[in-house]
Amino acid sequence: MGNLRMLDLDKIALAGAALDNGALDSIEAAFAHPSAVPNKPDTSDLYESGPVPHPTRKKLAVVTCMDARIDPLAFAQLPLEVGDAHIIRNAGGRAADAVRSLIASQRLLGTRIIYVIHHTDCGMASFRDEELRRILGGGAMVETMAFLPFCNYQQAVIDDVQFLRDHPLIMSERVRGYIYDVVTGSLTEVKV
Amino acid sequence: MGNLRMLDLDKIALAGAALDNGALDSIEAAFAHPSAVPNKPDTSDLYESGPVPHPTRKKLAVVTCMDARIDPLAFAQLPLEVGDAHIIRNAGGRAADAVRSLIASQRLLGTRIIYVIHHTDCGMASFRDEELRRILGGGAMVETMAFLPFCNYQQAVIDDVQFLRDHPLIMSERVRGYIYDVVTGSLTEVKV
Repeated sequence: MGNLRMLDLDKIALAGAALDNGALDSIEAAFAHPSAVPNKPDTSDLYESGPVPHPTRKKLAVVTCMDARIDPLAFAQLPLEVGDAHIIRNAGGRAADAVRSLIASQRLLGTRIIYVIHHTDCGMASFRDEELRRILGGGAMVETMAFLPFCNYQQAVIDDVQFLRDHPLIMSERVRGYIYDVVTGSLTEVKV
Repeated sequence: MGNLRMLDLDKIALAGAALDNGALDSIEAAFAHPSAVPNKPDTSDLYESGPVPHPTRKKLAVVTCMDARIDPLAFAQLPLEVGDAHIIRNAGGRAADAVRSLIASQRLLGTRIIYVIHHTDCGMASFRDEELRRILGGGAMVETMAFLPFCNYQQAVIDDVQFLRDHPLIMSERVRGYIYDVVTGSLTEVKV
């Protein structure tokens, strides 16, 4: 099942610090042209023993919804292949639920760009916390849970991008927000 | 961006209660034969107005890792197509981070089967909480965060399956755990 190999977090932090704005601009500009992104990131010096190729090619973490209709490798305007990006998915693609994963993505595996991608006809826009709490039978555990539904698609993206930009543990220079239309397949950026 | 349409949670709960063990056995038995699973679930009566086809065809929620090498629609032994399953992804595919999404998946959208799928060479097996806390600069917020790394692949799957089976808000009759081998592409069930 694979031996345990320990990452050298200091070396990773150093490598990340060397990724300046110019380098990230080039990487992000090449998103629409997959062939322009280096095919095999060299990770051989990040491990105490032996190479493991799991840092992402595009320094990108995508936060999107668990919805069954979404295939993050099939966004027409953001051509992603296996190996390009970390894909974090939860109900609604909510940022608050992705913080632990984003910290790991950035600090362990060197991503620097975050795209929050919500979508039309999302289940999280079709109920209210109180209703779900009632269905779950109430009780102390339920009353303190935040299920993170929303009632305005644009605002939910704005809230999530802002949440990440304001988060003290997230490297948030490059956070963008989008809404994916599950009918037309297009991604629309929500300017924040 | 889609009008808000409210789900009728009571109707969904009733429909779920009608899914007995026999029905779920048939659904799960057909996982290896996609054509045996009904193509279009009828959701027309779940909304207060108009149909939205986002419940899953296979009543399945997959919890897996954000790792860039994983394509949940390409597990050879679990052929999944767009529309078949909710896909929840986080660092490590950890269950504790998926509870909110699983509750939404089950109570809003009727899934009843959960597969936890970890993988070989996982980044979450390559550090310790203390190291990541040090890199993040320490402080009260960091000291209370659980990053959920693990040091034993089998045990991490067992822990996550057991966590969900024991969780009072998760419908946990059908929770299975697997390890995906990122080199060979095979899924191995971890019996719990």
